[in-house]
Amino acid sequence: MKLLVVGSVAFDAIETPFGKTDKILGGAATYITLASSVLGVESGIVSVVGGDFPQADLDMLSNRKINIEGIEIVKEGKTFFWSGKYHNDLNSRDTLVTEVNVLEHFDPKIPDSMQDAEVLLLGNLHPGVQLSVLEKMKNKPKLVILDTMNFWMDSAWGILMEMIAKTDVISINDEEARQLSGEYSLVKAAQKIHTLGPKYVIIKKGEHGALLFHEGKIFSIPALPLEVVFDPTGAGDTFAGGFGAHLAKTGDFSFENMKAAIIVGSAMASFTVEKFGTERLETVTNEDLKNRINDFKNLTSFEVAL
Amino acid sequence: MKLLVVGSVAFDAIETPFGKTDKILGGAATYITLASSVLGVESGIVSVVGGDFPQADLDMLSNRKINIEGIEIVKEGKTFFWSGKYHNDLNSRDTLVTEVNVLEHFDPKIPDSMQDAEVLLLGNLHPGVQLSVLEKMKNKPKLVILDTMNFWMDSAWGILMEMIAKTDVISINDEEARQLSGEYSLVKAAQKIHTLGPKYVIIKKGEHGALLFHEGKIFSIPALPLEVVFDPTGAGDTFAGGFGAHLAKTGDFSFENMKAAIIVGSAMASFTVEKFGTERLETVTNEDLKNRINDFKNLTSFEVAL
Repeated sequence: MKLLVVGSVAFDAIETPFGKTDKILGGAATYITLASSVLGVESGIVSVVGGDFPQADLDMLSNRKINIEGIEIVKEGKTFFWSGKYHNDLNSRDTLVTEVNVLEHFDPKIPDSMQDAEVLLLGNLHPGVQLSVLEKMKNKPKLVILDTMNFWMDSAWGILMEMIAKTDVISINDEEARQLSGEYSLVKAAQKIHTLGPKYVIIKKGEHGALLFHEGKIFSIPALPLEVVFDPTGAGDTFAGGFGAHLAKTGDFSFENMKAAIIVGSAMASFTVEKFGTERLETVTNEDLKNRINDFKNLTSFEVAL
Repeated sequence: MKLLVVGSVAFDAIETPFGKTDKILGGAATYITLASSVLGVESGIVSVVGGDFPQADLDMLSNRKINIEGIEIVKEGKTFFWSGKYHNDLNSRDTLVTEVNVLEHFDPKIPDSMQDAEVLLLGNLHPGVQLSVLEKMKNKPKLVILDTMNFWMDSAWGILMEMIAKTDVISINDEEARQLSGEYSLVKAAQKIHTLGPKYVIIKKGEHGALLFHEGKIFSIPALPLEVVFDPTGAGDTFAGGFGAHLAKTGDFSFENMKAAIIVGSAMASFTVEKFGTERLETVTNEDLKNRINDFKNLTSFEVAL
């Protein structure tokens, strides 16, 4: 087991200017592990679903060599459900429904088969749940990657600080970085967040790309300019999945390789937004990924002769 | 003469969270030519000032090998004056005073010494004035670069379209690109703007960097993440100056060299924002510029081995 992923496996119902879906497969852990399976990385999920969760979706994950032993099925419960509607610019959305359901009392259990994971990727969940997973691991993972959001800064600050203190790489968006640090400048925000624990700080800027900070060094990558963003749902989770999977696959946690991991994550995320939900991500091949990474190279490379 | 610049030479009074200035030297043509002088490019200004404009400022420009023969002095008139106050995030500002003064009846005259300019850079002014400059040039310049803004889209649409039709490279910000094209996606916006005339479209995104579009190809560069932006005044003009000067210096108008020119422009602009007005730009050396370009290289370069 290279990569252990803790996060939601869920249902989403999505409306964008281009159409709407019924309840479809969603959840952070779903996007993360689908991205990692494109890289051929052995991964496993720790999560919980209800009795209403389709066996076909579990089989789909299994067939992609994703270890689903850690997905607890609460027969009498219902799966987490989120429904949202994106505005015309696709940069903002309204949440229509959030049914926490079985996630409310989620007590993660880590199967023995996952105890040796080298990289632990904690998808966005209550920081108390994230922390309990880390504490339940018999072998400390070599790298802990944390995704979180402003909701937990508002509602669970103390335990979030405990969790962040034990994190190697934190991945948040620009507004969250400002909230977490109290600094407007993202350079200063990253400096403050370093002092909370994480040696690596990733700040996601959506259509403007992402920044990576480490020991005074900065890497900045634009997003791939797309003619149409069809559905942004899961883009951040897919990014985290591509990022974590590249690190788990290579076992190289240097700044240079983190940069490469950010490119892999960005390339993966650029596929997810092309169709609804996981539809596009499920069909991405390794060849597609290589071509997309090449697109990033073409997008950003330059030579200046003064 | 390599680079002919038409634009304001003016006074600014600026307030930022870090302090405020009295009336200081400003204006698009000032920033543009100061940037080009760092590259050692022969440039000339066509503009107009009032009798209140200090000889010392004219001498400063002259001493930097900037041809000021085309700066008309209207003895009984007053120089264009702008005053503004930036908000705490420095991304937005309120205009406190705009006194158009001698610019209101500006009728540009091009001295013979500037008629052979290879690159014409039209700084932000009424598009009718920009167009008249192009028509007064006896030799068609090899490259016409246009800077404009939303104000002219609202107030002078027809003549702006005429001007854009004769433009090779247009430089506008993201909101202006959306207004000009009626498209939210910047990729689609650039496609539409191409059909108006310009083969090259530059879209400036402020702290998020810039995009260059040409024949279906895209180049994207982030801005240099800075701990402190002291005063953003003139950053866009400085960008245009570095960009145009690099092209004028090399005489190479290929996509690859436009990318390099965008880096030079971005590096130049990153100096301007470090101090009030032109203060920092006036002290930038060629060595400073090389180091800053190297910072961009470090910021954006990556290698991915899959």
